[in-house]
Amino acid sequence: MFTGLSAFPLTPVTASGIDEEGFCKILARLVAARVDSLGILGSTGSYAYLTREQRKRTATLARQLVGEIPMMVCVGAVSTDAVLHLAEDAQSAGADALLLPAVSYQSLRNEEVYALFETVTRHVSVPICVYDNPGTTHFTFTDELHGLLSSLKGVQSVKIPGVPDTPVAATARVDALRQNLRPGVTIGISGDAYAGLGLNAGCEVWYSVCGGLFPETAKQITQAAAVNDHGLVTALTARLDPLWALFRKHGGSIRVIAAAAGVLGLTDSDCLPRPLLPLSAGDIADIARVMTELDLK
Amino acid sequence: MFTGLSAFPLTPVTASGIDEEGFCKILARLVAARVDSLGILGSTGSYAYLTREQRKRTATLARQLVGEIPMMVCVGAVSTDAVLHLAEDAQSAGADALLLPAVSYQSLRNEEVYALFETVTRHVSVPICVYDNPGTTHFTFTDELHGLLSSLKGVQSVKIPGVPDTPVAATARVDALRQNLRPGVTIGISGDAYAGLGLNAGCEVWYSVCGGLFPETAKQITQAAAVNDHGLVTALTARLDPLWALFRKHGGSIRVIAAAAGVLGLTDSDCLPRPLLPLSAGDIADIARVMTELDLK
Repeated sequence: MFTGLSAFPLTPVTASGIDEEGFCKILARLVAARVDSLGILGSTGSYAYLTREQRKRTATLARQLVGEIPMMVCVGAVSTDAVLHLAEDAQSAGADALLLPAVSYQSLRNEEVYALFETVTRHVSVPICVYDNPGTTHFTFTDELHGLLSSLKGVQSVKIPGVPDTPVAATARVDALRQNLRPGVTIGISGDAYAGLGLNAGCEVWYSVCGGLFPETAKQITQAAAVNDHGLVTALTARLDPLWALFRKHGGSIRVIAAAAGVLGLTDSDCLPRPLLPLSAGDIADIARVMTELDLK
Repeated sequence: MFTGLSAFPLTPVTASGIDEEGFCKILARLVAARVDSLGILGSTGSYAYLTREQRKRTATLARQLVGEIPMMVCVGAVSTDAVLHLAEDAQSAGADALLLPAVSYQSLRNEEVYALFETVTRHVSVPICVYDNPGTTHFTFTDELHGLLSSLKGVQSVKIPGVPDTPVAATARVDALRQNLRPGVTIGISGDAYAGLGLNAGCEVWYSVCGGLFPETAKQITQAAAVNDHGLVTALTARLDPLWALFRKHGGSIRVIAAAAGVLGLTDSDCLPRPLLPLSAGDIADIARVMTELDLK
């Protein structure tokens, strides 16, 4: 399941809790587009803001909605105990795989992160994707640690936060990481602005926020990658520069995607968990304009 | 309650949960030393690693043990809803004040942090101390934001992470912050290595990890500060340089303090919540040696 387009949907939240109707509408788009897999409750899926019960409910609901599409659930938490409980819940809800970050409060040492992954792999029966996202978790993986983690039975993919911004450097980066990994462990590009560079550099999967709301647009890119049409991958990704610029402007993708879900009428215009606040009306109008100009769908 | 020595104890944790016996032994030292106040469930108190139920139980237990000593409880969490629940629990448990950080997962904007504090102050009846700790929460307060927060009814102190490392620069830093604050809001120094500089620069309180395990040692310093004996404050703090060096070496104070609690026989030698791991036997021996040489008590 760790190839192609893995769509990472928003989990819309209102003052009264998870907006299940909005979540269903978002997932319906992904099912209709036949994305290759789903990444539920990722960073854009607001896992860090939800209770254990809300996360279990969200995963259960998603399982009902997405049918046979493989579903990965993020089980990130600061404490190992919490991760184990979440992993149990996710498996009960029907997760096909787990996404595991190294969420830090106190700075973590490499041996602590290794022990976390070793413990979790011993307790679960589904494959694990290593979630490398220093921007939110404040832990930076070394390639050596990635190699050690990939030797654990169960670890089958690594979600990386980006690649250097030239094709040659991106390929060198992906090659260097791959040399450390157990054969068969896939590398997935994240940080949507790097999607084209990452896919052309040999990443087998795009863990995609864009694909969580605009699956048709994202799937064009992974389909071009699947037939090694590097030129088309580059062109289709470059075309989306105004979207990536919005992500950069607003400190990441979540506030932009939440606004876009509102523009599409899938959710309220305010669908972020507090303390996150919705963007201004002016910013939302800019996002709507870019959505139209780029024909995001 | 926001003056003098505010002791921040460890919450010892074993594989079966909170080590209540160890916690009681630690608090007994603080009561015996008559610290001016307690900061329960701070960063060294592992708030970020404990469940809501564990945090409520810890605060309740502490209240029973510390009698009339004013008790502040940290209510930090990523989501505003969680903070509100924790604040309710802490107040029910008898907290005299709440310590509120801006814990970030997605990067937070200033208006989001302001709204968090505004919401919490509206919901609680005890005073709040702003917890400025970018090293763990990854949010950096500006002095302007501190000023805005201090205008909220209920905000009565600011816990700062350190000061520049010369007396002149430290005083300038504290003066600059104070100019932004509502009169009467105290400034507390944290980051124990900066205690002497901070107290001599005019901080009214030391929010102290050292004082959470070695209250007699810490109290000598705040008592010297209370009579404006700057020379003695400097000498007593400088004497502890080997302890601060251990904090730096081990990526913060928590692993050192956990090891020290074990050396004192108050807790198991492994009393950290996973994924945090105890230090090596060699490192613990170094810590024991420094404890003896400095006569920490």
